[in-house]
Amino acid sequence: MKKYTEIQDISNLSETIKEAILLKMTPFEFQDLGKHKTLMMLFFNSSLRTRLSTEKAAKNLGMNVMVLNVNDAWNLEFEDGTIMNTNTSEHIKEAAQVISQYADIIAVRAFPSLTDKEKDKSEFVMNSFIKYATVPIVNMESATGHPLQALTDAITVSELAEKARPKVVLSWAPHPKALPQAVANSFVEVMQQMDVDLTITHPKGYDLNPEITKNTPINYNQEKAFKNADFVYAKNWSSYSDYGKVIHHDKNWMITKEKLGDAKFMHCLPVRRNVVVEDSVLDGDSSVVIQQANNRTYAAQVVLKQILEKL
Amino acid sequence: MKKYTEIQDISNLSETIKEAILLKMTPFEFQDLGKHKTLMMLFFNSSLRTRLSTEKAAKNLGMNVMVLNVNDAWNLEFEDGTIMNTNTSEHIKEAAQVISQYADIIAVRAFPSLTDKEKDKSEFVMNSFIKYATVPIVNMESATGHPLQALTDAITVSELAEKARPKVVLSWAPHPKALPQAVANSFVEVMQQMDVDLTITHPKGYDLNPEITKNTPINYNQEKAFKNADFVYAKNWSSYSDYGKVIHHDKNWMITKEKLGDAKFMHCLPVRRNVVVEDSVLDGDSSVVIQQANNRTYAAQVVLKQILEKL
Amino acid sequence: MKKYTEIQDISNLSETIKEAILLKMTPFEFQDLGKHKTLMMLFFNSSLRTRLSTEKAAKNLGMNVMVLNVNDAWNLEFEDGTIMNTNTSEHIKEAAQVISQYADIIAVRAFPSLTDKEKDKSEFVMNSFIKYATVPIVNMESATGHPLQALTDAITVSELAEKARPKVVLSWAPHPKALPQAVANSFVEVMQQMDVDLTITHPKGYDLNPEITKNTPINYNQEKAFKNADFVYAKNWSSYSDYGKVIHHDKNWMITKEKLGDAKFMHCLPVRRNVVVEDSVLDGDSSVVIQQANNRTYAAQVVLKQILEKL
Repeated sequence: MKKYTEIQDISNLSETIKEAILLKMTPFEFQDLGKHKTLMMLFFNSSLRTRLSTEKAAKNLGMNVMVLNVNDAWNLEFEDGTIMNTNTSEHIKEAAQVISQYADIIAVRAFPSLTDKEKDKSEFVMNSFIKYATVPIVNMESATGHPLQALTDAITVSELAEKARPKVVLSWAPHPKALPQAVANSFVEVMQQMDVDLTITHPKGYDLNPEITKNTPINYNQEKAFKNADFVYAKNWSSYSDYGKVIHHDKNWMITKEKLGDAKFMHCLPVRRNVVVEDSVLDGDSSVVIQQANNRTYAAQVVLKQILEKL
Repeated sequence: MKKYTEIQDISNLSETIKEAILLKMTPFEFQDLGKHKTLMMLFFNSSLRTRLSTEKAAKNLGMNVMVLNVNDAWNLEFEDGTIMNTNTSEHIKEAAQVISQYADIIAVRAFPSLTDKEKDKSEFVMNSFIKYATVPIVNMESATGHPLQALTDAITVSELAEKARPKVVLSWAPHPKALPQAVANSFVEVMQQMDVDLTITHPKGYDLNPEITKNTPINYNQEKAFKNADFVYAKNWSSYSDYGKVIHHDKNWMITKEKLGDAKFMHCLPVRRNVVVEDSVLDGDSSVVIQQANNRTYAAQVVLKQILEKL
Repeated sequence: MKKYTEIQDISNLSETIKEAILLKMTPFEFQDLGKHKTLMMLFFNSSLRTRLSTEKAAKNLGMNVMVLNVNDAWNLEFEDGTIMNTNTSEHIKEAAQVISQYADIIAVRAFPSLTDKEKDKSEFVMNSFIKYATVPIVNMESATGHPLQALTDAITVSELAEKARPKVVLSWAPHPKALPQAVANSFVEVMQQMDVDLTITHPKGYDLNPEITKNTPINYNQEKAFKNADFVYAKNWSSYSDYGKVIHHDKNWMITKEKLGDAKFMHCLPVRRNVVVEDSVLDGDSSVVIQQANNRTYAAQVVLKQILEKL
């Protein structure tokens, strides 16, 4: 693997899932692979699971890890040709080239503005790193995608599916704040590649980017969508058409135990209890969110392993 | 040891002190014990000594260390059953379970509010970690206790005592800000278990929680309390009865060289010079605060060692 | 080497440069030297290159690294004899002695105030660490000097010089903010020790401390100064005589491709594009800033190596 900034960078998804599940059993088997190699983790935004699981994964492979909160360094400029006489101190051209000399792999988290649709869609942060860095880039959640989470989700569905071609429902759920579409986008993309029966459900006005959803069925009736579901994946996102807006607060879209039926409950976390999903789901046997979070380590580890093997 | 959140978690204090003093001589002897084990250090508050000495201790044992300032992640919710539609993004139930999958031991620092006595007394942060985490918890200073400091203090008194049953005085001292009672509480608890003559001295209104002080003598006259003292341990704390308030600014309670006499001076640091204690004490031969701070490493190391041995 | 807080701490500059260039070829050769040794990196200010390259260098030598942003600990007091009843919680006397017990080498970054010339000039932060710490101190940029950058610059000039005694020009360049003189000072000091033809050029009013520039020629005409230059080192600094002030915004001092001629362009980074230097320079073949930034690792590594050898 030459980089991992979108789910499409995985050449063989089912083999990669199998390899991740093997790594979970023998996490320290490839300690020599990362020897004298450095992972640089660069955060423009908050992180708990991504920060910790990716560091863990790298160390499982014997790598050194350096973590940089961009706030501890300099404001970066991403525009070409700008006269940098105001707020930005360093251009991504220099930053990416310089960091590439201190690291063998650079992992980046950079959330969208949710105010400038075209700019977010251009993935200017992630793409600037891809363009100017001279080492492989890993996406730890960007403006429009979260492929490490998506691979985690694919591993989790593979591990837990109790039948061939399970029914998987991605459901919008309420949230007080405007959130990115990144997790939902990457989940849809990875599930489209798997042998599952995928449905998306959300209130009208919350349609994801149609270039991503393509011909995946969308059902505006949550109850009908959930019928016979094996997995319900809940996630809030803000509107894509009325970009970045919270246009709907209907509490009826919260996931309840009753709605869930026999389906397993998935969520990327962090999750707001009794807003996105009620306590009884998270505290009951249907929830697999903890196991899912554990798979973050092995998703990151298989990605780093495949990149290290190509260095 | 299954956890170390209070001094009572040590089964054999005198043996543990001896073991710490041995570790100080051969700090790298047990490097294999921590191999492939991860310590997660989680900070809700500022730290210098605790952060550095605990990381050092873990690495001395061959552990990996990951450090997370909670500010870099998500605001945590600790209440059960809450509708999380305001400031908190993640419930401790999920956070503790998830982090437990990335770490073999979790160490937590979480200071009290000093505004809600019952809530602070309930130790809701530390106890939530104990309840929901699936790995051992280490207290790096909580609302009401600082057991790593207390063990450090016990090691230091053991090393430096020049006679059997030395007289140890815990003295309140002035400070401009309202500080927790945690260090004082744990110091009292550990000294009560040692063969020392313990006295507490403070102005009226600064009595510590009587469930902790029990039958330890309290003397409101600092001069009389210091008579024939072998160790004077200075510390400010805010009022427990008039909870969290600074009710007394009397500069006369500052520790001076004259008051100290032949006693050794101890303090957990950081210490405000010429407020808590005058320069001539800290700069003189009576002060053992630097040696005491060094023992933080070996207190943490013996605790981590005993926990690793039971994993 | 007993410390590295100024360029004068290097006993043999040309040998040290050669050693750094060798380390670049075999960076992991001395992994045993740092075994069980800890580098403490202490930041009072922002950092990207220094933070990452110094950590990298230490790990190349097999050291453990602990990083502390002083903001995550306590406000430090540097004045002697103060009554610490306001904003500072811990005196450097305690902090430096304590940290020395957790680390084998302490590296410190502490920028000047740019408001109090005498205080900045006294290097009170760096000198307090030197005075009170009991382990070697490394300067990661202080009030008046940046010797790790200067050594980097010396390595870079040595690597790239195409003739004996190349002409090296240090040029002031415009910048919207008031910046320290530290980089310029240390560059002048290191170049004065090398076999180069050094010239300084800047607008009137921007003369550096004459105790540093000594008899190095100063030319207020940038065009004339650049004539036949082999290296142009650009850097902004605020006025030394009208201390810390930006007294001149003349855009004509920006480095352009035309002005540069055949000279190689150097800068310590971060650099503001089209303010300090135009895009065509940084994006062209004359710029060596990326290679220069890479040498930061080996400058730090040779310094740490020489210090470790004397521990």
